[in-house]
Amino acid sequence: MKIGVLGTGVVGETLGTKLATLGHDVMLGARSKTNEKAAVWAAAHNSTAGDFADAAAHGEVIFNCTKGDGSLAALKQAGAANLGSKVLVDVANPLVFSDGQLSLSIVNTDSLAETIQRTFPSSKVVKALNTMNALVMVDPARVPGDHAVLICGNDAGAKATVSKLLESFGWRDIIDLGDLTAARGMEMILPVWLKLMRTLGNAEFNFAIARKR
Amino acid sequence: MKIGVLGTGVVGETLGTKLATLGHDVMLGARSKTNEKAAVWAAAHNSTAGDFADAAAHGEVIFNCTKGDGSLAALKQAGAANLGSKVLVDVANPLVFSDGQLSLSIVNTDSLAETIQRTFPSSKVVKALNTMNALVMVDPARVPGDHAVLICGNDAGAKATVSKLLESFGWRDIIDLGDLTAARGMEMILPVWLKLMRTLGNAEFNFAIARKR
Repeated sequence: MKIGVLGTGVVGETLGTKLATLGHDVMLGARSKTNEKAAVWAAAHNSTAGDFADAAAHGEVIFNCTKGDGSLAALKQAGAANLGSKVLVDVANPLVFSDGQLSLSIVNTDSLAETIQRTFPSSKVVKALNTMNALVMVDPARVPGDHAVLICGNDAGAKATVSKLLESFGWRDIIDLGDLTAARGMEMILPVWLKLMRTLGNAEFNFAIARKR
Repeated sequence: MKIGVLGTGVVGETLGTKLATLGHDVMLGARSKTNEKAAVWAAAHNSTAGDFADAAAHGEVIFNCTKGDGSLAALKQAGAANLGSKVLVDVANPLVFSDGQLSLSIVNTDSLAETIQRTFPSSKVVKALNTMNALVMVDPARVPGDHAVLICGNDAGAKATVSKLLESFGWRDIIDLGDLTAARGMEMILPVWLKLMRTLGNAEFNFAIARKR
């Protein structure tokens, strides 16, 4: 599948690498066409690199792996025409760090994912993978047990496409929380994630939903 | 131990019943001294009932099981003198339901628990048990697996007291997230809890923190 990955940070490169390893035709998108980091990554992973617009045009499915506070600008640079009516997987979180505390710039009665959906109404936004470390996203077996990846979105077909990709990463407990309003809760889980990371001393953990099955 | 439980809803009665069953001397506190529900509960559980001030005066440890939007009023009625420098376990969440969505009235850069701590600076506030159904709070074995109860607070001794009580309920994975600022994240987990309840169709689940141990 042709996949555009927007963002050259740890999340974008980790997801891009996994998708390329699985045989997908990945283009990594950066702010500029001549981003050296993206070019180096592409050369090493039998993939291509371009700017946000190139990567959005390339992908049948697009992953937003930009930082939450820059996601709207990055997606505007990608362009509504290139985003089209494609599946847009929003992995980002609208994080604000201040005085050692984590808060969210969009929260409670709205979410980054809903903001993106409103801004690009033709896109099929699916929130997923935002509640864990990048290494765990693409290799859930790093963490023992039946831990979960949460997803939500307004389009059932888009969620089915994303679920298949998640299964190919090794995810077994994929929990569909319904429409995109569930992204509020998925993003609001980040402050407790950070406290857990500080308490446990590492990021090699994940939320599991214990229940009778 | 003498324990005051503030609030006669499902959470207060369920916690009160468990604590009485474990042999504690429980007083259930209501808004009024003549709350019939509290009196009936007390008669059935070899316990006593009173108003918020009576229950706060009675307890060496006090559980705030009032609804989040009424917690400050209830605690003011309980009175700073009766709350003293006792352990105050805050189980409440500042929930707002609107248009089928759950949001929080205090959120992101503050929490109900911190608000209570600022209002009653001598109290030793510990946030705990706010992230699960009442039946699961007092009987974690209802849900399979190594699921977790999160706690936080500014006083180590108070957290040790609460942890002992939680162990007596059957909790094995008690995760101390640090000082009371962690209550933000603990309260912000409620929106995803509600979406999970709707997805799973019941409240017999809990968050687990999957990790190497």
